[in-house]
Amino acid sequence: MEIFIEPIGKLINEFSKLPGVGKKTAQRYAYKVVNMSQSEAEEFARAIVDCKNKVRYCSICGNFTEGDVCEICKTRDKSVICVVRDPRDVVAMEKLREYKGVYHVLHGVINPMEGIGPNDIRIKELLARIDGSVKEVIMATNPDVEGEATAMYIAKLLKPLGVNVTRLAHGIPIGGELEYTDEVTLSRALSERKSL
Amino acid sequence: MEIFIEPIGKLINEFSKLPGVGKKTAQRYAYKVVNMSQSEAEEFARAIVDCKNKVRYCSICGNFTEGDVCEICKTRDKSVICVVRDPRDVVAMEKLREYKGVYHVLHGVINPMEGIGPNDIRIKELLARIDGSVKEVIMATNPDVEGEATAMYIAKLLKPLGVNVTRLAHGIPIGGELEYTDEVTLSRALSERKSL
Repeated sequence: MEIFIEPIGKLINEFSKLPGVGKKTAQRYAYKVVNMSQSEAEEFARAIVDCKNKVRYCSICGNFTEGDVCEICKTRDKSVICVVRDPRDVVAMEKLREYKGVYHVLHGVINPMEGIGPNDIRIKELLARIDGSVKEVIMATNPDVEGEATAMYIAKLLKPLGVNVTRLAHGIPIGGELEYTDEVTLSRALSERKSL
Repeated sequence: MEIFIEPIGKLINEFSKLPGVGKKTAQRYAYKVVNMSQSEAEEFARAIVDCKNKVRYCSICGNFTEGDVCEICKTRDKSVICVVRDPRDVVAMEKLREYKGVYHVLHGVINPMEGIGPNDIRIKELLARIDGSVKEVIMATNPDVEGEATAMYIAKLLKPLGVNVTRLAHGIPIGGELEYTDEVTLSRALSERKSL
């Protein structure tokens, strides 16, 4: 005999597909669903289907959108483009409520180890966006090996087009301590020191 | 402008209702759904609705079931009843694959602080099950204040009916160390020591 009856076992299985969710957590989630009201469960299910059906990628920047072009591309300053790896990085930037430009989502970074080359991410779409009106492209890929390499690669392609390419600053995080800062970060903080 | 477009924001909100899921985790789950195939998302949604619609409580033991009476009540030895707080405790016991009796799920424990009295949990349903055929009732509520009190309360009701009431043993967990065992547990292990 199975320990779980079939509908619960199936839902546990579905929840287990979510990132970082093991059997035990999935089980807790499934029990929560059993204890929901009928309408709550239906709303939950509808939200999943809606999210899948309504969300697509902006034809300009590649970020999530409901229509063809996202709200950011429609309404914001197109002279500055911030290049990020994926849509969750857009969320991180937007939370600042400081940046007024638009984005370009690469949907990945160059990673030869995993067979991802420049043609597998949205680089040519970025080049196509560069015209006289673009003043600055901010490279905001992650500060890891792949992110750095991707930023360098794209910068090399963009510079001949006469556009100003910048990179997010690296250094000691605010509130961090010198003692506990890793050597690579500390070395970057030193070499990129600023005059006061 | 909202940081998340509406279908994603809504799904994040739904995922946030799951136990232990914060905004950040809900966001990761929602992105996973966006990246699922259409059929995967639909299957997920269907599993939620099915789980809510098909699962009910066994009319005898109160455990989850699809029909009126659960498989355990239908097929197992009814002379031993194991009393637990909720259906997830049944799962914990079933994983042992040792216990051959049936269960009784209380759906809670007596907790005066939260206003839960003996009439708010399935105690009278348990008493109704006690007839000449029941030889033993194992109290398997959690070894915390409420679980202990509930076990004592039920034991007092059952004993006059001439049924053998037992309680899961307390003591040092297997693999545990004396040094790190809390005092209450160690004291119980001492007072309940056995001759070898």
